[in-house]
Amino acid sequence: MSQAGGKFSGLWKLVAWDEPSFQGRQHEFTSECYDIAACGLEEVCSVRVESGTWVGFEHPGFQGQQLVLEQGEYPCWEAWAGNVAYCVPRMSSFRPISSANLRDSEMTIFEQENFLGRKGDLSEDCPSLKAMGWASSEVGSLRVYSGAWVCSQFPGYRGFQYVVESDCRGGEYKRFQELGSHARTPQVQSIRRIQQ
Amino acid sequence: MSQAGGKFSGLWKLVAWDEPSFQGRQHEFTSECYDIAACGLEEVCSVRVESGTWVGFEHPGFQGQQLVLEQGEYPCWEAWAGNVAYCVPRMSSFRPISSANLRDSEMTIFEQENFLGRKGDLSEDCPSLKAMGWASSEVGSLRVYSGAWVCSQFPGYRGFQYVVESDCRGGEYKRFQELGSHARTPQVQSIRRIQQ
Repeated sequence: MSQAGGKFSGLWKLVAWDEPSFQGRQHEFTSECYDIAACGLEEVCSVRVESGTWVGFEHPGFQGQQLVLEQGEYPCWEAWAGNVAYCVPRMSSFRPISSANLRDSEMTIFEQENFLGRKGDLSEDCPSLKAMGWASSEVGSLRVYSGAWVCSQFPGYRGFQYVVESDCRGGEYKRFQELGSHARTPQVQSIRRIQQ
Repeated sequence: MSQAGGKFSGLWKLVAWDEPSFQGRQHEFTSECYDIAACGLEEVCSVRVESGTWVGFEHPGFQGQQLVLEQGEYPCWEAWAGNVAYCVPRMSSFRPISSANLRDSEMTIFEQENFLGRKGDLSEDCPSLKAMGWASSEVGSLRVYSGAWVCSQFPGYRGFQYVVESDCRGGEYKRFQELGSHARTPQVQSIRRIQQ
């Protein structure tokens, strides 16, 4: 199996059902969905991502906890929930991650807010920032130069997820609050690239 | 930050506490622990991995759900729990993953049991097997030629985790039941290498 490089050229496709295990009413999405209620679904209880990588959100309007959805089957909400301390039993909006580019992903993390303090350059997946030489369990700010990444609260890509992209905010995240409306602490202990 | 290659040459070290947030009684481990009760800890509620990568187990004797523990801080059980549908509020045994070798990791997955059916060769992390060309959401059997890997039930390294190693069982896992005492289905949708 080889990994495709370059910008994703196909169409995005995500199928959502209002019952677990791909049962009940279904709806196909090929572009972003601001609020699933407007698409005739009361809730999303299972998902199959057929192409592209998507990010799902807890609340309408791309708000709340973020859930990276790569190609594959999510038969129940437990399959996409990132943090067991704060479960997300449903998703209310989602969008494709258009800037994902596995082969050209570069970012820099900084110890303090506003791109200050010690820094570390990343171009590969890091299941443990500490194992890569990052002394702290926190990241104060970060710049994404290319691609899209997911930062996770705990090692091994566990806990709260924060999607950061080169084509959002000019790739600049000056303080942890800019990582998402659900960000409560600067705790980030693993970071990986997002592929299409 | 550069990633170290080759066999891990340092000592393993994991510190465990019997209360959350690194409080209460603590114990340092530098080698495997068959049963935490024998080390004077009634339970493990927070963990800091200072060197090496470890795997924690739900039950004594390296049984039950498996939890990969890379370097970093796990202030509560939610930080290491891999599956929200079947929570693991404590760990009862753990051991270092001695065969982990990020730069020399090779494995082959097979569609059916006993190394039959279509196959796929892996030498890099795969957050979505489907995106890499694997049609099924299941893996029937697998061979690990080098290194240590973690197979996960759902895309993006979520759900049940199964650690597979070149120096366990000769690297041969002939059916899904051999992935661990907690394996209930052949569902595997993401696989990544384990680093030291």
